[in-house]
Amino acid sequence: MTTTEAGPDLVGETLADVGRRVRRAMLDAIPDSEPHRWLYGMVRAYPSRPSKALRPALCLAACRAFGGTDEDAFPVAVAIEMFHNAFLIHDDIADGSSHRRGRPTLPADHGDALSLNAGDALVVLAYRVLRRSTGAMSPELADIVLGEFEAMALRTLEGQATELGWQRDTVTALTPEDYLHLIMHKTCWYTTIHPLRVGAIVGSGGDADVRDMVRFGFHLGAAFQIRDDLLNLTGDASLYGKEINGDLYEGKRTLALIHLIDQVSPEHRGFLEQYLSMERHDRTPEVVARLRSLLDSHGSLEFAADYAQGIASAALDAFGAAFAAASPGRDADFVRALIPYMLGRPS
Amino acid sequence: MTTTEAGPDLVGETLADVGRRVRRAMLDAIPDSEPHRWLYGMVRAYPSRPSKALRPALCLAACRAFGGTDEDAFPVAVAIEMFHNAFLIHDDIADGSSHRRGRPTLPADHGDALSLNAGDALVVLAYRVLRRSTGAMSPELADIVLGEFEAMALRTLEGQATELGWQRDTVTALTPEDYLHLIMHKTCWYTTIHPLRVGAIVGSGGDADVRDMVRFGFHLGAAFQIRDDLLNLTGDASLYGKEINGDLYEGKRTLALIHLIDQVSPEHRGFLEQYLSMERHDRTPEVVARLRSLLDSHGSLEFAADYAQGIASAALDAFGAAFAAASPGRDADFVRALIPYMLGRPS
Repeated sequence: MTTTEAGPDLVGETLADVGRRVRRAMLDAIPDSEPHRWLYGMVRAYPSRPSKALRPALCLAACRAFGGTDEDAFPVAVAIEMFHNAFLIHDDIADGSSHRRGRPTLPADHGDALSLNAGDALVVLAYRVLRRSTGAMSPELADIVLGEFEAMALRTLEGQATELGWQRDTVTALTPEDYLHLIMHKTCWYTTIHPLRVGAIVGSGGDADVRDMVRFGFHLGAAFQIRDDLLNLTGDASLYGKEINGDLYEGKRTLALIHLIDQVSPEHRGFLEQYLSMERHDRTPEVVARLRSLLDSHGSLEFAADYAQGIASAALDAFGAAFAAASPGRDADFVRALIPYMLGRPS
Repeated sequence: MTTTEAGPDLVGETLADVGRRVRRAMLDAIPDSEPHRWLYGMVRAYPSRPSKALRPALCLAACRAFGGTDEDAFPVAVAIEMFHNAFLIHDDIADGSSHRRGRPTLPADHGDALSLNAGDALVVLAYRVLRRSTGAMSPELADIVLGEFEAMALRTLEGQATELGWQRDTVTALTPEDYLHLIMHKTCWYTTIHPLRVGAIVGSGGDADVRDMVRFGFHLGAAFQIRDDLLNLTGDASLYGKEINGDLYEGKRTLALIHLIDQVSPEHRGFLEQYLSMERHDRTPEVVARLRSLLDSHGSLEFAADYAQGIASAALDAFGAAFAAASPGRDADFVRALIPYMLGRPS
C-alpha cells in the first residue's frame, strides 16, 4: 500500500480547511473581554496562530468515515484543539521555549505566572465547549466521550511527567522501547489515538469498536513525533516555528539522543554524561554544537529516520484493521494519506 | 446578631468532620499508580495535608439547609476542594512560595515544571469527580451545576490574572474598591459564593433562588481574605502554614498595602515606589522589614482589621436574605457562625 495519487493535495487541502474553521470556532469560544491584557488576550494568542490542525482533522475524518456528519464531531474537535493549545502554553513554560508557531512564546512575552494562568483558562474553556457539545448527545454517549477525554488528558500528563522526570533526574539508561512507551503517553494518545477514537465513537453513535485505533494511532503518532524530533534538529526555522536545537538545550530524551547514549565512542562519553547532567541555562551554544556534531558523527539522525520509516510501515498495516468497518472514500483516504505525510512534512 | 453560643464548637467540629471525609474522598479519586514520584505522588501531596475544608463544608451545609442530603452534594464538594488544591499548586508556582500547610510547597520540593503538570492533573481529576456526580442528576440540573463550576473557575482565573498583572506592571493607583473587586473574583467566588450556590442548587433540585448568595458570599469571603492577609503579616507561622510576610515579598496588593500607598508620608514615598517596582528576588529581609514597619506606623493593619469588621456586619445582614428560604437548624447556624469565625481564626 503506498500513497494514493490524491495524497499530498488531499492532506494539504483538508488540513487547511479544518484549520481555518477550527481557529474561528476556538476564538468564538474564548471571551474577548477584561482582563484582556493579562488573560483573554493571552488565551487567544496561540489559537490565533496558524497551525497544522492535525488533531481536529483526524477527529472529523473518523467521525464521517464511521457514519457521522461534520457537525456531530465539530465541537469535540474544537475542544481537542483547545486542550492542545493549553498544553502548548504549559509546555512552553516547562521547557523554557522561546518560539511557538513562528512567534515568541507566551512565557517569553508575558512571564511564567500569567502564562500558567492563561493555560488554565484555556483548559476550562475547552471543557465548556465539550460540555455544551456533549449536552446534545444521549447521556450514555456523552459519558463515553467525556471519559475518553479525561483518559486522554491523564495519559498526556503522565507522559509529560515521565519526560520531565527523565530530564530532572538525569535518567540515561533508556532504550528505544522506553522512548516509544513515553511518546505513546506524551504524544500519541492526544495527537492521534484520542481524535480517531472519539471521532469514530461520535460518528457511529457509540457503536464502533475502536480498540484497533490504539495500534494504528500509536504508529501514526510515533511517526509524527520522530519527525518532529528530527525537524527540531534539521528543520527550516521559518517553517518549523520553534527554535532549532531547542530539544538539545532541554536535554530531551529523543530517539536520536537515546541512540547516541547507547553508541557513543569512549572518548566522548564523559562529555555526554556531563552534558546530560547540566541545567538548561548552562548549556551554551558551543556545547550544544558539540552534542549536535556527535549526533551527526554517530549516525543518530539516520537511526531515528530509519526507525520512523519502519513505524510508518506498521501504521499502514494497522490502518486496515482500524478502518475495516469504516466507509471507504475521501475521509478514510485522508487518514491513510497522513502516514506518508508524517514522514515528509516540512513543519 | 452575634455568635450563637454553639458557634465556635459547631464551626470547629463541622470543619474537622468535613475535612476528614473530604480528604479521604480526594485521595480515593487520585490514582496511586505510576508515574508516582513524578506525578501522582505529587498530586496527592496537598490533598493529604490537613486544611480548613471551608469550601466543601459550605457546600454541604447549603445543600442540607435547602432540602438535600449530605450524599447529594458530597462529590461536588470534593470536586470543589480538588479544584482548590490544584489552584494552590499553580498559585505557589506563580508566587514563588516556600511553604503550604506547614510543609514545603510542591515547586520548592520538585521544581516548577513537574508541579505545573501535577496541578493540571488535579484539575482533570476534579472534572472527573464532577462528571461522575452530575451523571446521576437530571440533564438540566447537571448542566446548571457544570455551568456554575465553569463560571467559578473562570472568575477565579480572571482575579488571579488581575492580581498578577497589578504586580507585574507595578500598578499602584488602587483604592479599597479595586481590592474588593479583585477579591470578589480571586477569592470570594470559589471560596464562598460558588460552594453556597451550588450546594443550594443541588439541595433544592435546582429550585432555589441563589441570587442573594452572591452578596452574602461576597462579604463572607471578603472577611476571610482580609483576615488571611492579616495572618500573613501577624500570624503564628506554625498555625498559618505559610511563610509570614510572604505577601510583602510578592508585593501583593492587600488592603493594608493599598492603605499605605494612599497614606504614606512624603519622606517614605520614594522607598515605597522603589519597593513596589522591585522583582521579588531583589526584596531582601531588610527592605521587607522596613515596609512592614511603615505598615505598622501608618496604622495600615488596623485599617484592614476595621474594614473586615464592617464587612462582617454586612455579611450578617446579607445572611438573612440568602438563607430566607432555607430550613433553620444546625446547617444554617453553621453558616452564620462562620462570619465571626472568619475574623478570629488563627490559621
